[in-house]
Amino acid sequence: MENKPKFAVIGGGSWATAIAKMLCENQEKIAWYMRSTYAVEHLKHQYHNPNYLSSVEFDINQLELTTDINVAVKFADYLIFAIPSAFLSGELEKLTESLEGKVIFSAIKGIVPETSLIVGEHFHKEYNIPYENIGVITGPCHAEEVALERLSYLTIACGDRTKAKLVAKNLSSYYINAKTTDDIIGTEYAAMLKNIYAIAAGIAHGLGYGDNFQSVLMSNAIREMKKFIKEVHKMKRNINNSAYLGDLLVTGYSVFSRNRMFGNMIGKGYTVKSAQMEMSMVAEGYYATKSAYKLNQKYGAKTPIIDAVYEILYENKEPKKVFKKLTDKLN
Amino acid sequence: MENKPKFAVIGGGSWATAIAKMLCENQEKIAWYMRSTYAVEHLKHQYHNPNYLSSVEFDINQLELTTDINVAVKFADYLIFAIPSAFLSGELEKLTESLEGKVIFSAIKGIVPETSLIVGEHFHKEYNIPYENIGVITGPCHAEEVALERLSYLTIACGDRTKAKLVAKNLSSYYINAKTTDDIIGTEYAAMLKNIYAIAAGIAHGLGYGDNFQSVLMSNAIREMKKFIKEVHKMKRNINNSAYLGDLLVTGYSVFSRNRMFGNMIGKGYTVKSAQMEMSMVAEGYYATKSAYKLNQKYGAKTPIIDAVYEILYENKEPKKVFKKLTDKLN
Repeated sequence: MENKPKFAVIGGGSWATAIAKMLCENQEKIAWYMRSTYAVEHLKHQYHNPNYLSSVEFDINQLELTTDINVAVKFADYLIFAIPSAFLSGELEKLTESLEGKVIFSAIKGIVPETSLIVGEHFHKEYNIPYENIGVITGPCHAEEVALERLSYLTIACGDRTKAKLVAKNLSSYYINAKTTDDIIGTEYAAMLKNIYAIAAGIAHGLGYGDNFQSVLMSNAIREMKKFIKEVHKMKRNINNSAYLGDLLVTGYSVFSRNRMFGNMIGKGYTVKSAQMEMSMVAEGYYATKSAYKLNQKYGAKTPIIDAVYEILYENKEPKKVFKKLTDKLN
Repeated sequence: MENKPKFAVIGGGSWATAIAKMLCENQEKIAWYMRSTYAVEHLKHQYHNPNYLSSVEFDINQLELTTDINVAVKFADYLIFAIPSAFLSGELEKLTESLEGKVIFSAIKGIVPETSLIVGEHFHKEYNIPYENIGVITGPCHAEEVALERLSYLTIACGDRTKAKLVAKNLSSYYINAKTTDDIIGTEYAAMLKNIYAIAAGIAHGLGYGDNFQSVLMSNAIREMKKFIKEVHKMKRNINNSAYLGDLLVTGYSVFSRNRMFGNMIGKGYTVKSAQMEMSMVAEGYYATKSAYKLNQKYGAKTPIIDAVYEILYENKEPKKVFKKLTDKLN
């Protein structure tokens, strides 16, 4: 297996499609599971995902497409999960194939709502996957730019560096520069926390704060993120590496980020419910906010930005007033 | 003097106008020197600067307007310089009034070309101003957002904290949140280096790199800035504070930044000369690149981004090739 490991992508969204594209640059064949029969049929006959990154054309001979997650799991040694965290539990319930011996990489940026765990912890605690078989794929990386083959950097985290390197090698190409780290907990928390800060950036924008404030917000956010992650998992890490700061920036400055968009609507006066209905989906950062807030009641890190977003999303407090108070705490 | 110090603003550009506006929120009268007789006359009769931030209306009774720098110097205890660094020497040559006993704050983000010194060092070495009478006003702050009274944070640096606090107090208002620090050297170098990184961001954009790469570039830039400043002036500082990281972000992500615009033109294929002619001005970062590069030959910090910009601007190397090489050094 170690020489010729096989890969499966779990998910049919834009990030899953981008990862399938990256793998196809290196693998002869990959399995690709998605729920939608329509999307699978479309891919088989039109060679592209009809719903996401539809400009990306696939060589159909490279794809073992399936709407049965068990087919994909059986096919592969390495499983890459790229579905919204809210759907993970439901998908895993469909499993009849065993996950034993499989290496599982999460490209999910969020918290599993049912267990309030980050994805790696969820697989470890709920499915007995040993930590050396668990990894994280993190950005800074918008899937849309992978489709355009614009140079992007990934960070591949795994306690077992050999596996991290293997995944990095299989994702790399002339437009993907993949680095490895062993900070699996830190990178995954960073990927989840950045969505909360993107919501904060959106709220600020919606309230009429400008670019000057946005830069202050982001500079406070990275300091807050550092404190939070240090409490959760203390180790030597440079929070300004791309996997942490870069990932925060690419999301926090993106007008296409769903989390930032969600925050923007809240800032402009939408209720949480109506913003979610309008977006016809739930931004990852919505769950992340609650989980991070609750988790931090144990750790007690100073996290005024997370607290502010929590008060707005879950305690129905007025964004304008909450942010006015927040601005006095930033520096 | 300490109780009722008087202020003068030196400069007629947008940043000078923004500072004049901030001071007028707190001072009964300030002196304001600018070269243009036309601008002074316009201000006297139309109450706004015709050339910059023209939406800002002044109460003319608060302004001692002058086209003679000596009038402004004589009027004030605190002089705030906000002119392009390339014009500083020329303006100072006009002085017949002594600077002795004056407190000098620099709102200039750059290097004095004639001496290759940052502004604080220039005043200290060339005019014998003691360091406790020298300070720096730094962002992150676009002048345009001050005009709109959008909440902005300033950092006021001075070796003498009492003076830093006095200036901070006189610039603060409901839309300005001014903090103090004693890191006068570090904040001034940060303000100067960020313009080089903004040029780099512009070049990358001009060459077709996307948002993913921009976030990696910025995350490498702040690490590079930290190393550079540590070599120049070692002290305990958090590089992620707003005066360093925030200032980098507000410029590096701004499509209005003259330095980023200049870099963008270079990336798109303009020569340095033609880009400068097209912009009808020289971006501060152009001089800063040379100074930082030369200075670092003494210090030897690893600064691949500064080196790349230097090679493009001063060694006539092809941007595409230089950036291709640079991307391999980033992580």
